[in-house]
Amino acid sequence: MIGRLNHVAIAVPDLAAATATYRDTLGAKVSAPQDEPDHGVTVVFVELPNTKIELLHPLGEGSPIAAFLERNPAGGIHHLCYEVADILAARDQLEAEGARVLGDGEPKIGAHGKPVLFLHPKDFLGSLIELEQV
Amino acid sequence: MIGRLNHVAIAVPDLAAATATYRDTLGAKVSAPQDEPDHGVTVVFVELPNTKIELLHPLGEGSPIAAFLERNPAGGIHHLCYEVADILAARDQLEAEGARVLGDGEPKIGAHGKPVLFLHPKDFLGSLIELEQV
Repeated sequence: MIGRLNHVAIAVPDLAAATATYRDTLGAKVSAPQDEPDHGVTVVFVELPNTKIELLHPLGEGSPIAAFLERNPAGGIHHLCYEVADILAARDQLEAEGARVLGDGEPKIGAHGKPVLFLHPKDFLGSLIELEQV
Repeated sequence: MIGRLNHVAIAVPDLAAATATYRDTLGAKVSAPQDEPDHGVTVVFVELPNTKIELLHPLGEGSPIAAFLERNPAGGIHHLCYEVADILAARDQLEAEGARVLGDGEPKIGAHGKPVLFLHPKDFLGSLIELEQV
């Protein structure tokens, strides 16, 4: 079912410092910061040859990463995003296997403009997983 | 400096169950378990089209992931591994930037038979980073 690793998301308390770490210390290609008000985050994309790292910083009230940063004030890996060909088929198969989909189970339009779902970390080895239809 | 994301390592408390999660629930291609006694882990490789997920389970006494699993009994993302062309040049540049390399700073031969170093999570947004020379 899952295809490519679309990205690894890292929640960071200071986006400018995190961008400098990846650009200057690790020598990677980084994007300009991009506000995603519908998703409550500002994102910097780190472009690696085979995948992306997304540096996420809270934007506005009620950001979905605010509680994570309270628990992990220095930042940390927030989720892994895997690509799927058909997100509804993936959801139905996962639910049939007993895995929990977060929220109401309906795909939302994610930060890349494509349908996404999140899966419960307790069913996936302690890691939050995003599925993105590509 | 950094190139491809070589792998994401996930520490897991039950390797058979974790393998089943990735193989049966997520439908990915997984390897047979491979003991790495020199590194204190048993590894299952999840082969995605563009990178790998490595499921790590402690092997023997003093495994480097035992303390992590005590803190995260359900498992969790343990580290990210980035490829570099020249690990000594990478180390020298990172240390010149003030980043901390773990251990004595000398590359060790990693689980793939190639020189590796680990970087301090506090200098890299709360995520442990492995560099592997390819």
